[in-house]
Amino acid sequence: MPEPAGWTYSRAGVDRGAVSTALAALLAETRYRPPTSHGRVLDLPGHYAGLVRIGRETLAITTDTVGTKTLLAEEVGQWEGVGEDLVQVNVNDLAAVGARPSVLVDCVLCARPDPGVFAQIGEGIGRGLRRGRIALVGGETAVVPDIVRGTDLGGTAVGFFPRGRRPVTGARIRVGDVLLGIPSNGFHANGYTLVRRLLREANVDLTKPRRGGTFPLGEELLRPGRIYVDASEALADRATTHAFAHLSGGGVRNLARLHGGVRFELDTWPDPDPLTEWVRDLGSIAPVELYQTFNTGVGFVAVVAASAVKSSLEALRRAGVRDARRVGSVVRGRGVVLPRETVAYSGYS
Amino acid sequence: MPEPAGWTYSRAGVDRGAVSTALAALLAETRYRPPTSHGRVLDLPGHYAGLVRIGRETLAITTDTVGTKTLLAEEVGQWEGVGEDLVQVNVNDLAAVGARPSVLVDCVLCARPDPGVFAQIGEGIGRGLRRGRIALVGGETAVVPDIVRGTDLGGTAVGFFPRGRRPVTGARIRVGDVLLGIPSNGFHANGYTLVRRLLREANVDLTKPRRGGTFPLGEELLRPGRIYVDASEALADRATTHAFAHLSGGGVRNLARLHGGVRFELDTWPDPDPLTEWVRDLGSIAPVELYQTFNTGVGFVAVVAASAVKSSLEALRRAGVRDARRVGSVVRGRGVVLPRETVAYSGYS
Repeated sequence: MPEPAGWTYSRAGVDRGAVSTALAALLAETRYRPPTSHGRVLDLPGHYAGLVRIGRETLAITTDTVGTKTLLAEEVGQWEGVGEDLVQVNVNDLAAVGARPSVLVDCVLCARPDPGVFAQIGEGIGRGLRRGRIALVGGETAVVPDIVRGTDLGGTAVGFFPRGRRPVTGARIRVGDVLLGIPSNGFHANGYTLVRRLLREANVDLTKPRRGGTFPLGEELLRPGRIYVDASEALADRATTHAFAHLSGGGVRNLARLHGGVRFELDTWPDPDPLTEWVRDLGSIAPVELYQTFNTGVGFVAVVAASAVKSSLEALRRAGVRDARRVGSVVRGRGVVLPRETVAYSGYS
Repeated sequence: MPEPAGWTYSRAGVDRGAVSTALAALLAETRYRPPTSHGRVLDLPGHYAGLVRIGRETLAITTDTVGTKTLLAEEVGQWEGVGEDLVQVNVNDLAAVGARPSVLVDCVLCARPDPGVFAQIGEGIGRGLRRGRIALVGGETAVVPDIVRGTDLGGTAVGFFPRGRRPVTGARIRVGDVLLGIPSNGFHANGYTLVRRLLREANVDLTKPRRGGTFPLGEELLRPGRIYVDASEALADRATTHAFAHLSGGGVRNLARLHGGVRFELDTWPDPDPLTEWVRDLGSIAPVELYQTFNTGVGFVAVVAASAVKSSLEALRRAGVRDARRVGSVVRGRGVVLPRETVAYSGYS
């Protein structure tokens, strides 16, 4: 595929193809499975979490970092948001398989341990724990100035499937299903390598609001991502809930992770939110790049049976999630299409 | 405590006190516990793993990185060892609470994804998985040149307690217990910030063996750490096994994590292994610093009832662990003492 005009993630320094190639090399020799006395792995390659059956329980485990959003936190001097994001990026991946969050460990890598910065990060983590209803039970703090210049915030979360609940994997998706989208609040923790590059190129002042904005741009960009645990918990026990997608890195392409034999048609996908539009215009980002880099205003999608749209929206409302709406449907074909923008993706990567 | 003469970890750039202060600031606001419908956390502060009860299962979760040993891997151009260490550092912490390893996720941070390097890392991870009997079920690969210059290899492991087994926490340690030590094979993944500094100061050629060595020093220093899962599995179900210690960062001080009301007297602790002695001499490292930085030849300790020494050694032998030996005992007092070196530590940190 030729590079689109305008800025791309790859031009900002991250070559997705090279990452995939290297990752495939790493994974080639790691397929070992221990005796089942060590637990039975349920293979779901490419999904949001690993699953293992131990005794009568099925567990989900997922790991993720906040990425380069921490560099913006450093520039602006505000660390609470990215602290909360450390929890967010992980619990939202548990939510995407319908697992109930249980415990988290964090991993902080830094060049020097600044107590003021650490206190802010801890404040944010604490807020994330309460929102995601998960306990921090351990972690690692590595002061490694020879390895990192900035700060890396990562974590690993473990969740489980309460009695009777099955993992929500997308296997039961069928043509005719409806996509319910739940709004995001900004870029969550994705696309910041590109966003930071555009800010630098245009010499943007982070202490002032962008055109049309209310808060200083630095603050707006550091808002922690929304946590979708309530939405997942509201729908995960319903047989008519066929899948969830967390629109993290990869944007709407994440939908293609759920099922390879159908097409996700985003016929009522909302226009991008104002912050995304502002960044799009700043970088002349082409639609094909925009929708595979940012969540564009929808952070979490539930795929439900057509007959269950009304009751699903009602269940979400009862759980306090009042802003879900229909954003598309499942049709024959494969990949993800966004008719309004004439954008189509054949798969996740 | 005044700094000892000779090289110290702190002089090499890592100030343990500053790390503790910052970590305390981070943890201050992260004590939240979710409703027990999300699992019941079993608090074991300062221990090797976090524990949570989910349904009928008790799980252990632990996270750790290989640290600056990766910089040596980069210098020498050999990555398999540190790949295996990614597994080792985590499964050994599970082994230290008597948990059986089940699943692992890895987290690789790098400046650029080199398929050759990634293939070697994967080869090492695969070897570690087989030795630790654990399955890799997910991971994160972050290409973040603005955050890292080198490569960071981290992971998180989840284990469990097979039916009837209780976590081995040290709570049942009593005066008279005996310490059985199992040899390490080098520095595992600890102390490399100091080791690398000493090598640089002395301009040591890594392609040649050290005095008394057989292999090129680079190769010897990159040997992956021994995995103690077999030892833990052999002893964890025995009521006479009161604790395990994994002698990672902090050296023999790790014993003080196990029980605050007794003293661990290392009256038959072996002399340091030849590689440790060589590094000690290179940096004129004082005993008090040596034993709190390196494992000095003993990587894992089991604390067992005096009456069970013979049967424990026999159980280890049956599991293929033939080189365990008595290294000390539990006496009245507190902290850790090494009479031969007149070294004493009052606690873990």
